[in-house]
Amino acid sequence: MGRLRELFAPATVAVVGATDREGAVGRAILENLQADFDGEIIPINPNRESVLGETCYPDVESAPDVDLSVIVVPPPIVLEAIRESATAGVKNVVVITAGFAETGGDGAARERELEALAAEYDLNLVGPNSLGTMNTRNGMNATFGPENALEGGVSFMSQSGAFITAVLDWANEQGIGFRDVVSLGNKTVLDETDFVEEWGSDPETDVIIGYLEGIDRGDRFVETAREVSKETPIVLVKSGRTDAGAQAASSHTGAIAGSEAAYETGLEQAGVLRARSVQELFDWARALSGLPMPKSEGVAVVTNAGGPGVLTTDAVGDADLEMASFTDETIEALGESMPDEANIYNPIDVIGDADITRFEKALDIALSDPNVGSAVVVSAPTAVLEYDRLAEVVIEQRERHQKPVVTSLMGGSRSRAAEDVLRDFGIPNYFDPARAVSGLNALAKYRSITDQTTADPTTFDVDRDRAREILETARDRTGNRLGVEAMELLEAYGIPTPSGEIVDDPADAETVAADIDGDVVLKIVSPDISHKSDIGGVRVGVSDEDVYDAYEDVVAKARNYQPDATILGVQVQEMLDLEGSTETIIGMNRDPQFGPLILFGLGGIFVEILEDTSLRVAPISESDAQEMVDDITAAPLLRGARGREPADIDAIVESLQRLSQLVTDFPAILELDVNPLVVGPDGAQAIDLRLTVDTEEL
Amino acid sequence: MGRLRELFAPATVAVVGATDREGAVGRAILENLQADFDGEIIPINPNRESVLGETCYPDVESAPDVDLSVIVVPPPIVLEAIRESATAGVKNVVVITAGFAETGGDGAARERELEALAAEYDLNLVGPNSLGTMNTRNGMNATFGPENALEGGVSFMSQSGAFITAVLDWANEQGIGFRDVVSLGNKTVLDETDFVEEWGSDPETDVIIGYLEGIDRGDRFVETAREVSKETPIVLVKSGRTDAGAQAASSHTGAIAGSEAAYETGLEQAGVLRARSVQELFDWARALSGLPMPKSEGVAVVTNAGGPGVLTTDAVGDADLEMASFTDETIEALGESMPDEANIYNPIDVIGDADITRFEKALDIALSDPNVGSAVVVSAPTAVLEYDRLAEVVIEQRERHQKPVVTSLMGGSRSRAAEDVLRDFGIPNYFDPARAVSGLNALAKYRSITDQTTADPTTFDVDRDRAREILETARDRTGNRLGVEAMELLEAYGIPTPSGEIVDDPADAETVAADIDGDVVLKIVSPDISHKSDIGGVRVGVSDEDVYDAYEDVVAKARNYQPDATILGVQVQEMLDLEGSTETIIGMNRDPQFGPLILFGLGGIFVEILEDTSLRVAPISESDAQEMVDDITAAPLLRGARGREPADIDAIVESLQRLSQLVTDFPAILELDVNPLVVGPDGAQAIDLRLTVDTEEL
Repeated sequence: MGRLRELFAPATVAVVGATDREGAVGRAILENLQADFDGEIIPINPNRESVLGETCYPDVESAPDVDLSVIVVPPPIVLEAIRESATAGVKNVVVITAGFAETGGDGAARERELEALAAEYDLNLVGPNSLGTMNTRNGMNATFGPENALEGGVSFMSQSGAFITAVLDWANEQGIGFRDVVSLGNKTVLDETDFVEEWGSDPETDVIIGYLEGIDRGDRFVETAREVSKETPIVLVKSGRTDAGAQAASSHTGAIAGSEAAYETGLEQAGVLRARSVQELFDWARALSGLPMPKSEGVAVVTNAGGPGVLTTDAVGDADLEMASFTDETIEALGESMPDEANIYNPIDVIGDADITRFEKALDIALSDPNVGSAVVVSAPTAVLEYDRLAEVVIEQRERHQKPVVTSLMGGSRSRAAEDVLRDFGIPNYFDPARAVSGLNALAKYRSITDQTTADPTTFDVDRDRAREILETARDRTGNRLGVEAMELLEAYGIPTPSGEIVDDPADAETVAADIDGDVVLKIVSPDISHKSDIGGVRVGVSDEDVYDAYEDVVAKARNYQPDATILGVQVQEMLDLEGSTETIIGMNRDPQFGPLILFGLGGIFVEILEDTSLRVAPISESDAQEMVDDITAAPLLRGARGREPADIDAIVESLQRLSQLVTDFPAILELDVNPLVVGPDGAQAIDLRLTVDTEEL
Repeated sequence: MGRLRELFAPATVAVVGATDREGAVGRAILENLQADFDGEIIPINPNRESVLGETCYPDVESAPDVDLSVIVVPPPIVLEAIRESATAGVKNVVVITAGFAETGGDGAARERELEALAAEYDLNLVGPNSLGTMNTRNGMNATFGPENALEGGVSFMSQSGAFITAVLDWANEQGIGFRDVVSLGNKTVLDETDFVEEWGSDPETDVIIGYLEGIDRGDRFVETAREVSKETPIVLVKSGRTDAGAQAASSHTGAIAGSEAAYETGLEQAGVLRARSVQELFDWARALSGLPMPKSEGVAVVTNAGGPGVLTTDAVGDADLEMASFTDETIEALGESMPDEANIYNPIDVIGDADITRFEKALDIALSDPNVGSAVVVSAPTAVLEYDRLAEVVIEQRERHQKPVVTSLMGGSRSRAAEDVLRDFGIPNYFDPARAVSGLNALAKYRSITDQTTADPTTFDVDRDRAREILETARDRTGNRLGVEAMELLEAYGIPTPSGEIVDDPADAETVAADIDGDVVLKIVSPDISHKSDIGGVRVGVSDEDVYDAYEDVVAKARNYQPDATILGVQVQEMLDLEGSTETIIGMNRDPQFGPLILFGLGGIFVEILEDTSLRVAPISESDAQEMVDDITAAPLLRGARGREPADIDAIVESLQRLSQLVTDFPAILELDVNPLVVGPDGAQAIDLRLTVDTEEL
């Protein structure tokens, strides 16, 4: 049983601020509790003897044992009310009262005090500014919303109370049932991660769904959700996806919106199914809570209507699903039992004059096929087909074969009765076949999440102390930025760099060049000059005898360009054979919510113009790194498209993991770019580097 | 009045094959006509005196004047029945009977005879294999479907009869009304283009919608729909979008599926809004038939619920819409009339305690803003807000401001009454705000279609005779393929090529090279050798003195590679300065449905790996060609990204138009690729060419 079970399943609930005044929130909550709650309800109000027929107590201390306090007193006395509950031994508190951080100023100060108070007494605290909580198993509706939820297996959290109100009214009509419901409010103490964790350990929760406008500690969320999603599907709408939406969310919650790219990748790594709309959220939740998991991707479509059958096939093609290839036995069995005009290949068209027996036969044969993981039954109304009977057949066949079946019994009033029957058995019916397929697609997506084996990130043997020493040098640099002079940082973490050295004397340059096979590259090293090539600060293909003059030349060019530039020296570097190799970029940006985001892409136009990059939240495993490479559109170029020699992808994969380890080990690194990481057929080499360090964090 | 008006509005309808036999199609149609039809119904059946109370005639000839014959006799006597109607002067025929091309063999032969017969008598013939036709204005339901449609402004065609049956049952429940309905059947005579044309000239059709599995003559359809869509929106589901779907459609209709890319671009050029699902089809049709057109893209969102407001803003961000920026006057007016906690910036949050007056005020102020083209009203149910009243306010404000307003009054049973009121005024209400926004998006998309000024393609002065002469040479070539030896074809149409000539003697090569400034390129010219560079058949940077030897060398290499190859000679070509220029591809592929499809992309990996190309159906105008260049993701490279000199885009645009003219003038050109067309800062040059000619067509 989870840490928060008592919050949802208290034996006694105190309503602190209960009243019988019409229109008051304190009355609405009491009434909602009175409606269905199995436990004891204790109104707390020093000015009343009883409220709505319940004996009233002046304070929690004097009341019988309380498991949960619901606080609805005015803002100025909320903290006092919470302390009173806490000293009386109450561990679970839901703060309905608004007027905290969302109002700024005094409210924000009050919220900080509330947070400290909760920490002091180790409270499980929901809110403030919450609509409340529900648990349908014990009938507890501790919200001031207009109605209670139906019983079901969906646990639901929402950062918007109004969204809960809207959804419940609709869900009750649609017959969608819930397990627990929580309005997160300002999430001062308990947030989305806590509830994901709680419901992950709750056997009565089939599916976790949520409406969120932000995730506060993205790294913690990813870690928790990744575990939970192996056992319990999580479907979220995270709003503020678009620029306009992010702005609206931020003005609504007062929270800083994280970057959409970070949410996108973070939620995916967490195994969360991200719905883009309310409709998708519930279409997916229904399928995930009501249907068995398919054992394979193959979908069979059984229909009495050619056109809708084609539409359904398109929807399968759009999804992460495929039309099942029937076995010879299936084709034969269908051939024997269907009329000549029928189509016995997938989609099976039992044609317009099909009665219930033919439909049943076709569905039974299709579901018997081992290549069929799930089925969609699509029909147009005809004179010879009763939808009620068809609904029963679908239910029977689903039970018989234990495979998910969804339906699009198309029509209006004539499909309603069948719809009700299907719903009772967890099968959603939609007018649009694409929505039925969308539900199956959610199952397929979830199956692929559970199929993923998440390996732990590899820990490489690195020289952490040396890395720290180099990062420390950022203290002396403008803006705490480091460049090519910090290449040893990469070496310390095993990311290959060309041989070479930074020198501050032309004679030393000659010595270094002499030790390097072949020609060398000379580059000015200055934190003040970023476009080195443009100002003549780079010389390539310099032979040993020309090194001295070339040194003088690049220094002169730099001085000429910017007389007051700090010049750290000149880098004398091995000249790589770039023929047949590819420039890539590996980098990191630290997201306020999710922490270090690792980036991979091909260099130049691929990143800048085509924006062909992939991202992952660090730390990443080997398979994450491999996926990052595979995810970019230009990946075939690395694999040897158009007669090129294949690049050493393993070297990229390893460099990405080593970079991940570096930025995980040093939270002080705020951003870092290796551009380019040149990848040839045999290995990768980091050619240039830029990073910014938060030296306070070192 | 359109050519087909009498088909939908006959004064008298004959049902040829009418019967009172239970379960017979001939009975179902008669009953459906009897239900509502304003005109005269004439059963035709030589074996009956009367059918279902209507006087029966042995044949159409002996009956009173017939405007429309609906044919339901068995397949073998269909042709005879049609001829009988035609000789009696009937021009409009709906053939319900199936058993034609869709069954293959005899049926296909029968369908060809039917086509000839219709042509002989110039019949307006629907079907065969049709569910029938409807017109709600005169109550004519000449189908064997289970129910009649409601009256409305949507004209509806479908290649699937079952789809019509399914939709009508649902639409009647949803209150969606229709003007005309036609089940296209096998489309032997009248097809989608005919009905688009008819409804385009019908003042009572507000929106044309359709379900199609294929478009038979794409070029004719594009031409017609482009005209019609300027006045009347067209929304189509064209199924078979995906590979799986295309296969299913083709096995269902027996028609060859055209390429999805051709449909995509053809429908777009035709000004058709392409819906991807049934839900989208009707969400869009509703919005387009019920709402006024917005005058600008700016959307205002008015809500009492922060979360749903953010969701709505995301949906706006996803769409071709933008959140309106309010004027200072609007902000001021909202500031004065809203409470302090409200958000007066877009989305306007009137907050949870808003009553109807506050909602009304906010909506009125928002719609008064000149930057607001349309509005979305989103609300969660609260104790202080009656949805019925909110619906009235929405309707009043819409009338007052003449701007489209859509709603998402979220909830279940408590929103139903409001929903009915809104629907009567053409405002669709959805639980999911994203669906409400989708409707507004359809209006915005349609507005941009009507805003487009379609220029006629430019006709360039070209040497058509010379082009024909060159195309004629394909008669002598294997597979009727031409290569670089046909470069003069491009010159004849004004597409620039480097100077040079094809010679078959090394001394001639020297002469040609001497006339060209600087070094030259030598290329083997052989229809049998496609990868010229790979076999050493290309030499670049050849100086005048080396030309003789280089000639011998490329010929020797070619002979060595393939001794029996036909060698047409060696091309001696001006060597272009490729520094600072970009390789592009312009090409054409002839689609069976839509005709010549012009392609543009950057060369090499951009086309082959990144598939970054744009397509248009020829002939294309200057603005089409300009759009083709702008449409590719890599377009910034041509405009001078990353410090490059901008490419001469005008030269590409002109080359594309000239290519369009060439392939339009010569339907014999089946496919053609100019690869590369090298584009520098000052002009473009076609470097290589391949084409295939259908010499029978010349």
